[in-house]
Amino acid sequence: MTWKEENNKLKKEYHFKDFPQAMIWMMECSYHIEKQGHHPEWFNVYNTVKVELTTHDTGNTITEKDWKLAKTMDDCYLKFSQF
Amino acid sequence: MTWKEENNKLKKEYHFKDFPQAMIWMMECSYHIEKQGHHPEWFNVYNTVKVELTTHDTGNTITEKDWKLAKTMDDCYLKFSQF
Amino acid sequence: MTWKEENNKLKKEYHFKDFPQAMIWMMECSYHIEKQGHHPEWFNVYNTVKVELTTHDTGNTITEKDWKLAKTMDDCYLKFSQF
Amino acid sequence: MTWKEENNKLKKEYHFKDFPQAMIWMMECSYHIEKQGHHPEWFNVYNTVKVELTTHDTGNTITEKDWKLAKTMDDCYLKFSQF
Repeated sequence: MTWKEENNKLKKEYHFKDFPQAMIWMMECSYHIEKQGHHPEWFNVYNTVKVELTTHDTGNTITEKDWKLAKTMDDCYLKFSQF
Repeated sequence: MTWKEENNKLKKEYHFKDFPQAMIWMMECSYHIEKQGHHPEWFNVYNTVKVELTTHDTGNTITEKDWKLAKTMDDCYLKFSQF
Repeated sequence: MTWKEENNKLKKEYHFKDFPQAMIWMMECSYHIEKQGHHPEWFNVYNTVKVELTTHDTGNTITEKDWKLAKTMDDCYLKFSQF
Repeated sequence: MTWKEENNKLKKEYHFKDFPQAMIWMMECSYHIEKQGHHPEWFNVYNTVKVELTTHDTGNTITEKDWKLAKTMDDCYLKFSQF
């Protein structure tokens, strides 16, 4: 599944087996988020996480920072998508 | 700060020192969420977490389950509010 | 890889890609540990976690509780072992 | 409580209210550990975490890296020590 560009944001919805799986995926992402110094807007309920990425410093446009974090989140999701 | 009742939901916004603090508060809450079997809708960006609680089983009304989880989240927040 | 029985303990060593992977595996296990009410002795350095399981209530013998947690830890590890 | 120097290692034992508190303290520390690129040897059972710090690159001696991480762990523990 790909990211959708909408209103100057990258958007994607991730689905997990259950709530703990969603939480530990967020946890894993959070290490990278800290390292990249670029923070998502993300919303969780039960086994679903909706993510929106935009770069505030450039007046809320989609930049390389967003695409980099998007790729990282997808990479982290790989292991969850199969279990 | 108290919870606000609005559109049959309990709502509150929590603020933290930084992103990791927000994440580990969510992590701590998640243990209780699992035990209580009652899941919040929550939204994070950087050091802020917005929470909305409602009980789907009863047609989206506020029930004892919501007040119990609200109290738990507040209890977990105590230690973060001072650091 | 299997669990080793030694001195009335179940023992196993898990290896991960890096330190964050080891941490989030521990995090995922911790949800189950809480639910099962049965706690491991575990040791982490960098990408390695050594686990020892025994049941204190029965005078430090290996019981069904240990085998159940061992199986859970293996199940959680599946997704990490391939990435 | 202070750190003990023994066999070229800094050693300390932390105590928490329960297992989840121990886990999320480890989680919080892990962000800093990643940033500092310096990893502890740490052992958890239930509400206790034993930590040993040494610098492998310098032939297992105690260096500034160890004291820095020790201070960070103590800082993260502050909020847990009162709850």
